Amino acid sequence: MKKLVIVGGVAGGASAAARARRLDEQAEIVLLERGEHISFANCGLPYHIGGDIEQRDALLLQTPASFKARFNVDVRVHNEVLSIDSAAQRVTILNRVTGQRYQESYDALILSPGAAPVVPPIPGLQNPRTFSLRNLPDMDKILTAIEQHQPKHATVVGGGFIGLEMVEALHQRGIQVSLVEMADQVMAPVDPEMANMLHQELVDHDVDLHLATALQRVEETPQGLRLQLSNDKVLETELMISAIGVKPEVSLAANAGLTIGELGGIQVDAQMRTSDPHIFAVGDAVEEIDLLTGQPALIPLAGPANRQGRIAANVIFGQDSRYNRTQGTAICRVFSLAVANTGLNEKRLAQLGWDYDKVYVHGASHASYFPGAHPVSLKLLFSPKDGKLLGAQAVGKDGIDKRIDVLAVAIRAGMTVFDLTEMELTYAPPFGSAKDVLNQAGFVASNRVTGETALVHSQALDDAGDDQLLLDVRNPGELSRTGTIAGAINIPVDQLRERLAELPKDKTILVFCQVGLRGHVATKLLTNSGFQAKNLTGGYKTYQAVNARF
Amino acid sequence: MKKLVIVGGVAGGASAAARARRLDEQAEIVLLERGEHISFANCGLPYHIGGDIEQRDALLLQTPASFKARFNVDVRVHNEVLSIDSAAQRVTILNRVTGQRYQESYDALILSPGAAPVVPPIPGLQNPRTFSLRNLPDMDKILTAIEQHQPKHATVVGGGFIGLEMVEALHQRGIQVSLVEMADQVMAPVDPEMANMLHQELVDHDVDLHLATALQRVEETPQGLRLQLSNDKVLETELMISAIGVKPEVSLAANAGLTIGELGGIQVDAQMRTSDPHIFAVGDAVEEIDLLTGQPALIPLAGPANRQGRIAANVIFGQDSRYNRTQGTAICRVFSLAVANTGLNEKRLAQLGWDYDKVYVHGASHASYFPGAHPVSLKLLFSPKDGKLLGAQAVGKDGIDKRIDVLAVAIRAGMTVFDLTEMELTYAPPFGSAKDVLNQAGFVASNRVTGETALVHSQALDDAGDDQLLLDVRNPGELSRTGTIAGAINIPVDQLRERLAELPKDKTILVFCQVGLRGHVATKLLTNSGFQAKNLTGGYKTYQAVNARF
Ligand SMILES: Cc1cc2nc3c(=O)[nH]c(=O)nc-3n(C[C@H](O)[C@H](O)[C@H](O)COP(=O)(O)OP(=O)(O)OC[C@H]3O[C@@H](n4cnc5c(N)ncnc54)[C@H](O)[C@@H]3O)c2cc1C
Ligand SMILES: Cc1cc2nc3c(=O)[nH]c(=O)nc-3n(C[C@H](O)[C@H](O)[C@H](O)COP(=O)(O)OP(=O)(O)OC[C@H]3O[C@@H](n4cnc5c(N)ncnc54)[C@H](O)[C@@H]3O)c2cc1C
Ligand SMILES: CC(C)(COP(=O)(O)OP(=O)(O)OC[C@H]1O[C@@H](n2cnc3c(N)ncnc32)[C@H](O)[C@@H]1OP(=O)(O)O)[C@@H](O)C(=O)NCCC(=O)NCCS
Ligand SMILES: CC(C)(COP(=O)(O)OP(=O)(O)OC[C@H]1O[C@@H](n2cnc3c(N)ncnc32)[C@H](O)[C@@H]1OP(=O)(O)O)[C@@H](O)C(=O)NCCC(=O)NCCS
Repeated sequence: MKKLVIVGGVAGGASAAARARRLDEQAEIVLLERGEHISFANCGLPYHIGGDIEQRDALLLQTPASFKARFNVDVRVHNEVLSIDSAAQRVTILNRVTGQRYQESYDALILSPGAAPVVPPIPGLQNPRTFSLRNLPDMDKILTAIEQHQPKHATVVGGGFIGLEMVEALHQRGIQVSLVEMADQVMAPVDPEMANMLHQELVDHDVDLHLATALQRVEETPQGLRLQLSNDKVLETELMISAIGVKPEVSLAANAGLTIGELGGIQVDAQMRTSDPHIFAVGDAVEEIDLLTGQPALIPLAGPANRQGRIAANVIFGQDSRYNRTQGTAICRVFSLAVANTGLNEKRLAQLGWDYDKVYVHGASHASYFPGAHPVSLKLLFSPKDGKLLGAQAVGKDGIDKRIDVLAVAIRAGMTVFDLTEMELTYAPPFGSAKDVLNQAGFVASNRVTGETALVHSQALDDAGDDQLLLDVRNPGELSRTGTIAGAINIPVDQLRERLAELPKDKTILVFCQVGLRGHVATKLLTNSGFQAKNLTGGYKTYQAVNARF
Repeated sequence: MKKLVIVGGVAGGASAAARARRLDEQAEIVLLERGEHISFANCGLPYHIGGDIEQRDALLLQTPASFKARFNVDVRVHNEVLSIDSAAQRVTILNRVTGQRYQESYDALILSPGAAPVVPPIPGLQNPRTFSLRNLPDMDKILTAIEQHQPKHATVVGGGFIGLEMVEALHQRGIQVSLVEMADQVMAPVDPEMANMLHQELVDHDVDLHLATALQRVEETPQGLRLQLSNDKVLETELMISAIGVKPEVSLAANAGLTIGELGGIQVDAQMRTSDPHIFAVGDAVEEIDLLTGQPALIPLAGPANRQGRIAANVIFGQDSRYNRTQGTAICRVFSLAVANTGLNEKRLAQLGWDYDKVYVHGASHASYFPGAHPVSLKLLFSPKDGKLLGAQAVGKDGIDKRIDVLAVAIRAGMTVFDLTEMELTYAPPFGSAKDVLNQAGFVASNRVTGETALVHSQALDDAGDDQLLLDVRNPGELSRTGTIAGAINIPVDQLRERLAELPKDKTILVFCQVGLRGHVATKLLTNSGFQAKNLTGGYKTYQAVNARF
């Protein structure tokens, strides 16, 4: 009879325990959790604070008793594993209720200790009004503080997904929120111009946004906290949430001599085995291998943790199961918007020095003539050589998850932009379009790869010289509503054919419209009439997103 | 300079014309349309009747004038092509306004005449209260009839997607609706048990449903119509919509000697070329090749028509563009439900005699602890040998388009059920689950393919003999609410381990719960304890769907 010991009782650990029991009815399975709860919905914590999830109980998917009943797992909460003796195959445990220490032997050990909120070395951070959020006790403390102080103002430090969810949660509770982020954008997995759409949404919801700004010092005041920022501003606030990131909990593993990877996570092979053949590790604590680069990556998300827990159990009970790399698919709600991404972003591609190109499309979430359609702003990254898909990001009110999910699978399948043109997706007016925004992105990108159309990116427009002419092909009404790019002349696309004589043949004409579609029609008309022309990817809408400053 | 003539000015034809102009500024492009409109949203017609799309104008995406201005296409509405002289490369045209006939030569001809509503040989069908729906004049006639007669009752004949959309549209206008369908299910692309969920939804919305019923005779009465049905019932109704299917419009092509395929559509190669090298055909009028079977298929949908139009233009202007087969992805709204499918269904697999198996999962559209989650009922068909995906169907209130779109791409990529287990999809509580219903379907199906679990299908339960025992592992409360399967004994999953002694070792235990998940846990417990057990796929929920009778 095998004895399996598991450290950590939430996403990775509980999944491993449940799967292990399904694979072996006889095995002894001990689940050790230092906290009070197992199997809780970490991801739901901000939504209970904000009020979307009304019942606290809804966050508890299993209890030690229910887990025992269903899976005959020996669950021990308030039991912290202090050390691993890998030679003896034994862990030392502290019962945090009784204070007693004891040992437990194992045939196989799974580590799923997760990742802890990063605590930066900022003076004054340890104070009773500053919180981080990882588990239910953290959540309860925040709710109690809100109850107790009835704050009018709170500050979130860190604009990753937990920070953004907390901004929204506090806003939903009627609290004015400041958001302080050290980078020049929130939501690091997407590129800055996509993040700018989120910045706009935050500002539109009265969030006081401080980008490219570090928190330098925290002081307690009679009313709450005084935050000194690197932009020389001072925020008087009543509550602070620190959400600047998480780092793998590796002390147990490191002290046991297990190999720690270059990014600071536990190193594992595809079978989730650490450098010790009897010890497996899964979830936020481990380094994964990026699907496209083959390099290590830290992806602290629930999907991978759940699936890795299942794989570790499979391997321990004799199956040859493998975790097939990660592509970092993620999504976050930011007020009325969703932002999602999969694969590599442009920042990373530039850093890698890979040959890549990009297109932007802003299509409708479903048939534009059917009510309730919203723009889906999609950025697609691909290889200009063969069109291989490298990454995708999308922002919008509806259908964002769908487009990124489809692209996640397409990337995993090694598909190209040409495959996108062929995708046969569901279409009826309430659900899609005859040519979905994904097909359109495929058309635009494949025109680029075949060389059928030349594109110019907003990011390159500043370098436009005297040999270039900016041509806005929108209607005058649109220009007066939204403005245009400095120096552009205006000929509406539908008049272009009659007014070609107004255009020079010795300059490159940089054509743009609102989103790129009419610009494409105009660019084709011009190049097929002997002009040199390029179309601005994503049109004026992307231009604005690229050039917005917050 | 090339001269391109196009017959039909809507999905396929207009797309081809627009693309042709983008590829060649000099070509002469003539678009001939016998009706009054080009580029209209056929798919929106039912939704304007129902009121979702308020403005009739929203259905007109382009007019002859706007198309001329943008694309310099010579659009001639009310111009019907009567015949093709393929030797002379010339068409004969009737101007339906002037009555004049004339000819037009071509270098290349594209046929996109679409498909016409099938008119069955039923006595009395030609009457002023019976309508079919293909274009705006048809829609206008229906709206006028509703205006004029203020019907309290209407009948839709045919339960395909147009019929179902018309049922809903009429219902939205406060009209009591009967639906008459000859097959024993609506929505032929899905299998009967999935369609049963739609039948329930129709009945729940007071639709008077007649399945397996043919319309035999129509008589005019002073109040409206009297419909004689094959089930010996007679319906007194005030308005009738005939929507029993469409058939390719091939008379032009057939008269010109072009090859017509075995299903009655124009035969084309992957470049959309007919048997005459100068004549191309696209859209509803052509036969496509099924992605999985390689056999001809008729898929009268807008996405293929649009993309084929673009491909035909590409080929005519020198690109080697190919239509890469069809998989029949489709979706339809039925009141609060969506139903969608891609790939092959079980009926077709059985007909083909292929080796296949299936699983059902009923997962949540997003995290079940976040408000607004609805069940996604998914049926997955795959090869039991290697797990290759063969088809999928889904029904539910939310997230149906997303799941089928992802699976459509997975099928196109040749993926297996094992790939589903690895899919890295977007997850945050409002959008998905840490293990999406697609991952779950992958787990269940891969357990089947590897032989890790034995499954039993509801469809086979009737054959259960004395050597089998039905075991319901739900809680007693659930049983009293929903009932159970006749002959089943009840041991809740969480008591099973303690009560194994109550079960026989010499019988096969057929385990079930509500959706299959707890049944799986119980089945593993039993088999790992030396019992013979099989889990009922999709649980009692699928059992009910399989056995419902309407
Ligand atoms: C507020 C919040 C929101 C989130 N939202 C999302 C989201 O929307 N989508 C998404 O994909 N992911 C989200 N996540 C991330 C997701 O929750 C994690 O990726 C996932 O829980 C990781 O699983 P894990 O098993 O590795 O670690 P955890 O779930 O963190 O579990 C680790 C457990 O191990 C215990 N432990 C650690 N060390 C020991 C020890 N020595 N002895 C005993 N026990 C120990 C800890 O107490 C902890 O309970 C969110 C996380 C948070 C905190
Ligand atoms: C009510 C309704 C709802 C629909 N809903 C959906 C949906 O939700 N999703 C979906 O994917 N599809 C839907 N469709 C189907 C979709 O509209 C068709 O697949 C698509 O329009 C086919 O394009 P086509 O160019 O082949 O034919 P059509 O769009 O039908 O265009 C053919 C045109 O050719 C003209 N024509 C024919 N013969 C001649 C001739 N000899 N001379 C001149 N002109 C000629 C006709 O007048 C017609 O306007 C729906 C169709 C209808 C009618
Ligand atoms: C609750 C928890 C213990 C469940 O673990 P689990 O039992 O492995 O997962 P599920 O309940 O999803 O069940 C999956 C199993 O049911 C099976 N299953 C699912 N639907 C099924 C169906 N319709 N028919 C048959 N089997 C089905 C799957 O095949 C899988 O079994 P397998 O692994 O043996 O193949 C674990 O997910 C957990 O702790 N979650 C909370 C923590 C967390 O994830 N936090 C982060 C997100 S907020
Ligand atoms: C209106 C209609 C004529 C438009 O045809 P179209 O111009 O080919 O299609 P779109 O307007 O979608 O534009 C697609 C083109 O814009 C390009 N494009 C789209 N978004 C773009 C962007 N953001 N940047 C650059 N180019 C873009 C595409 O690459 C494609 O050009 P290409 O074919 O040269 O590669 C045709 O779709 C039609 O008649 N539709 C109505 C009928 C119908 O489909 N009915 C059934 C459904 S209800």
